[in-house]
Amino acid sequence: MKIIAAKKILKANEQLAAENRSQFDAAGVFAVNLVGSPGCGKTTLLEALFGQAGLAGRLAPAVIEGDIAGSIDAQRIDAIGVPVVQINTEGACHLDASMIAAAKEGLGIRDWGRAGGDPESPTSSPQPLVPSPQTPAVRLLVIENVGNLVCPTGYDLGEDEKVAVLSVAEGDEKPIKYPGLFVRAGVVLINKIDLLPYTNFSMDRAVGDIRKLHAAATVFPLSCRTGEGFAAWCEYLGQKTRVT
Amino acid sequence: MKIIAAKKILKANEQLAAENRSQFDAAGVFAVNLVGSPGCGKTTLLEALFGQAGLAGRLAPAVIEGDIAGSIDAQRIDAIGVPVVQINTEGACHLDASMIAAAKEGLGIRDWGRAGGDPESPTSSPQPLVPSPQTPAVRLLVIENVGNLVCPTGYDLGEDEKVAVLSVAEGDEKPIKYPGLFVRAGVVLINKIDLLPYTNFSMDRAVGDIRKLHAAATVFPLSCRTGEGFAAWCEYLGQKTRVT
Repeated sequence: MKIIAAKKILKANEQLAAENRSQFDAAGVFAVNLVGSPGCGKTTLLEALFGQAGLAGRLAPAVIEGDIAGSIDAQRIDAIGVPVVQINTEGACHLDASMIAAAKEGLGIRDWGRAGGDPESPTSSPQPLVPSPQTPAVRLLVIENVGNLVCPTGYDLGEDEKVAVLSVAEGDEKPIKYPGLFVRAGVVLINKIDLLPYTNFSMDRAVGDIRKLHAAATVFPLSCRTGEGFAAWCEYLGQKTRVT
Repeated sequence: MKIIAAKKILKANEQLAAENRSQFDAAGVFAVNLVGSPGCGKTTLLEALFGQAGLAGRLAPAVIEGDIAGSIDAQRIDAIGVPVVQINTEGACHLDASMIAAAKEGLGIRDWGRAGGDPESPTSSPQPLVPSPQTPAVRLLVIENVGNLVCPTGYDLGEDEKVAVLSVAEGDEKPIKYPGLFVRAGVVLINKIDLLPYTNFSMDRAVGDIRKLHAAATVFPLSCRTGEGFAAWCEYLGQKTRVT
């Protein structure tokens, strides 16, 4: 019974995720589901990425922050002028597609991709497939999941790409120990490479294991402290969001 | 319906945890539930603790390793000569009391604390409350949970103490962001303090927040690389396991 219930929940989640995905696609939004351990540096990565002069403007980002409690992360993103919505899961260990559907409203992109208008509002006229002049022209939506290497893995949010974040301080054996994320992640950010001299982290082992789990994964070693590796990661995002 | 099912599961878990606890108590075993993020250094902490000459003998430890997949951690504990059982959760994000009940058999301490013999074996004679000569004289059982700051929090395993591990590399705001663990943990190990010079981790902020969440928590700052802080943590465990 326990298993059946879980499957039902996942099935409902898949349907909602598909709806989110079609809305993102119709609006030309590239959506990223950012997953990693607590403290792997997800929020700092976003600060470093969008805090660079001009880059936020070019990538046209918005952020959904997922946390069990509080709004520390959303405050940090808000402080650099990027539109952000905080989801509090109130104890839950991962985001799901219904939470993203709700959070989209907070970003003012509720009607994106809806051709038929609001079904609860019979008097509403058909909505266009493109953002109205009132909605922000978001091209990159980053959904920062709850800090957790395990549970977010099984829940599709409707993202275009699952991006795993692994910090050097966590150890090079984590991909093998937590394979669920790394078989699914199209991109892996190996973060905090400034700490390499002070740890026994082997980049060769980590990248080798990541490739064993997902041969086509793109790996970016990065440091938010030194900025090393950011150029390649920014270029990748620019291509995905069609920035020339 | 989803909530009711979760409550039922937790209720069953509480009963099994109580059975585990009474068996540990009757056998004079001090049981620790070690909880922290992936890569916070849980296994390395145990290697450093039990690898010290003579200390493993004095603390008389055994270890249950919880991982989603693989046996990397159990191999590391086995290599230093400490009895160990690996639990593979096959995707599950936390250990529960039933897994611990099963793992105890692997450590050969199944009959510890059973006064009435095996109910499935009507011919068995009453068992003593103390270990038989065949069972190892374990005094400290460390259960290393799945690397996860969220989900293990709600599941009592029958431990005497929940010990949280927080690494300096994760950031000093983690207690506030993941309060569920820190309100319950009687002991907090702040690990990897050798990395303090290379991060912006504030020990004052972390310890202050931990005390706000749990005023009576005992905090040990530690480094497995330099050995700093281990004397106090060893003394604490020695007291709990009645080592004089």
